Amino acid sequence: MTVPARVSLVTLGVADVRRSTAFYRALGWPVSSASAEGEVTFVRTAGAVLALWSEGELAADAGASAGERSAFRGVALALNLASRDEVDEALEQMTSAGGTVVKPPVATPWGGYSGYAADPDGHLWEVAHNPGWPLGPDGLPVLP
Amino acid sequence: MTVPARVSLVTLGVADVRRSTAFYRALGWPVSSASAEGEVTFVRTAGAVLALWSEGELAADAGASAGERSAFRGVALALNLASRDEVDEALEQMTSAGGTVVKPPVATPWGGYSGYAADPDGHLWEVAHNPGWPLGPDGLPVLP
Repeated sequence: MTVPARVSLVTLGVADVRRSTAFYRALGWPVSSASAEGEVTFVRTAGAVLALWSEGELAADAGASAGERSAFRGVALALNLASRDEVDEALEQMTSAGGTVVKPPVATPWGGYSGYAADPDGHLWEVAHNPGWPLGPDGLPVLP
Repeated sequence: MTVPARVSLVTLGVADVRRSTAFYRALGWPVSSASAEGEVTFVRTAGAVLALWSEGELAADAGASAGERSAFRGVALALNLASRDEVDEALEQMTSAGGTVVKPPVATPWGGYSGYAADPDGHLWEVAHNPGWPLGPDGLPVLP
């Protein structure tokens, strides 16, 4: 057997599910009716389902200790867009929604354009345009 | 403008890109030729692209300080499968590949079956069967 190659969900541990949900809603992202108000939110995206859940409950569910959390979590999500203008606009929208630009977008050595924003809990999103990675019909990058 | 709802990539910061790549390869996951041996690996999955990159470089790219890392990162990925047997088999395969089961699978209050494994860098994967979330043709859960 091989294990199916899937990222089915990405669950972000958050301090306040309502606050976090308001942020992603403000971007226009669709919240599934499978969500439980203030307890857990599931956001439908082109790729993995994005889940927002209490960080303490996530830790407990995994049998882990939430412990002290470092500012940098060693994980970044990325949102790939079709143009530099879309990157600028998305970062503005994320700021309006209550996020923070942690790295203004710049031209990258790989020929693209990329910046980083943090959501209200410090989860990092790279917002990027990569002309070498065309987007498929579902909006996700198509890799060789 | 609304921001397209996408999780395009999930980048995991890792201590050793070769070791981490060997783990995901051992699961049978397809590595893209866009990867650079030992520097960065891109894995094609049904959802987001999974990227494996030096944790220090990821922090620097985001303008963050890698600093001290807590054992629990406040993020979990999930791999949703079609049956309980598939969950058991995937967790065995992850162990054979060098991962660690941090929570053996159990029946859950929501009628499913779920366990957690950590990859060689401690990134958490929930491995689950949720009978209430049917899998679409691409293998990803279809949410109401």
